[in-house]
Amino acid sequence: MAKRMAALRGSDLSSAVAAIDGWAVEPGDGGLTKRFRFPDFQSAFAFMTAVALEAERMNHHPEWTNVYATVDVRLSSHDVGGVTERDLALARHMNTVAARLAAAD
Amino acid sequence: MAKRMAALRGSDLSSAVAAIDGWAVEPGDGGLTKRFRFPDFQSAFAFMTAVALEAERMNHHPEWTNVYATVDVRLSSHDVGGVTERDLALARHMNTVAARLAAAD
Amino acid sequence: MAKRMAALRGSDLSSAVAAIDGWAVEPGDGGLTKRFRFPDFQSAFAFMTAVALEAERMNHHPEWTNVYATVDVRLSSHDVGGVTERDLALARHMNTVAARLAAAD
Amino acid sequence: MAKRMAALRGSDLSSAVAAIDGWAVEPGDGGLTKRFRFPDFQSAFAFMTAVALEAERMNHHPEWTNVYATVDVRLSSHDVGGVTERDLALARHMNTVAARLAAAD
Repeated sequence: MAKRMAALRGSDLSSAVAAIDGWAVEPGDGGLTKRFRFPDFQSAFAFMTAVALEAERMNHHPEWTNVYATVDVRLSSHDVGGVTERDLALARHMNTVAARLAAAD
Repeated sequence: MAKRMAALRGSDLSSAVAAIDGWAVEPGDGGLTKRFRFPDFQSAFAFMTAVALEAERMNHHPEWTNVYATVDVRLSSHDVGGVTERDLALARHMNTVAARLAAAD
Repeated sequence: MAKRMAALRGSDLSSAVAAIDGWAVEPGDGGLTKRFRFPDFQSAFAFMTAVALEAERMNHHPEWTNVYATVDVRLSSHDVGGVTERDLALARHMNTVAARLAAAD
Repeated sequence: MAKRMAALRGSDLSSAVAAIDGWAVEPGDGGLTKRFRFPDFQSAFAFMTAVALEAERMNHHPEWTNVYATVDVRLSSHDVGGVTERDLALARHMNTVAARLAAAD
């Protein structure tokens, strides 16, 4: 089990997220969201698979919705009801994988 | 490209869906929905992978949301704005795969 | 990085493996092997995906060959040149996943 | 079921394959092979997932071996005992996917 981390709030959170392309903070600072668009379903699902492997390694999983070539993601640390460094790390990782798969944000 | 099929409506649709465990018809007959629950994320994502392969084979893809061990699915044939035999076929297939993976509905 | 474990050898190894259905010890005790057969490619690849997630979580990966509905697996702990408890754990896990997917051994 | 295609042989085959980076013709013209190397297991398995989706769509599947970040592939059309346009198409597709995932050949 991963250890409990502190939730980031307010300007600490917004400035950390500003450095991660395309991610937005939810009102109330409860989570991060981003829409990823891919050329086709195969690329979208390859992205999800790569992220699923990382999520399982981190024991930290996204909430996500897939409609054909689009993947809408929400990241949140449920144990603290907010956004932690683990969410930021997974957000950065997802950007890296998506860039490899030629996603347009 | 798959050929265009007729949308099923009303009692034709409800009686066809009644034979497929756990699926519900949306108000207005626009789509089918079901929540699948699995023992863990690994089983949920294995389910999604098996279904993704079938979806790509059929060229007919679900709308779905995954939160850890739960997968919420919506099936609809967008070209006709409703539910066709292809949705019924994919719904049946998803039930078969989920049963193999020991899902509780 | 996972910690280094001791390799099991000889009768310690063979008796441990005897309790895990279908797995064989290589001559020289360097690894474990098993052939998994599935009803179709979709099931075989769903199996591989579930196992890949577990392998990434354990940071311990199989060597495997897939030809349509068959998956040939070799497990070995390269850091010690033999079979450790991690290989046995992954072998048991693969049996559990394969049984769910209705594999015939 | 995909329709039967003619096997390519000799210089027809070798010149067609020469245009697809990194693929080699087996002695006897029975198949095509290539080794793909990725930065890590996650990328290797994301590659395999994207290819699995295409393979299922084509109803034409690779023989492949994965050891951590390496994927060794063999393509052959078993119905004709040789290499057909379907193998060439899948080889090209695999190159495209691998390039996206930053593979070094």
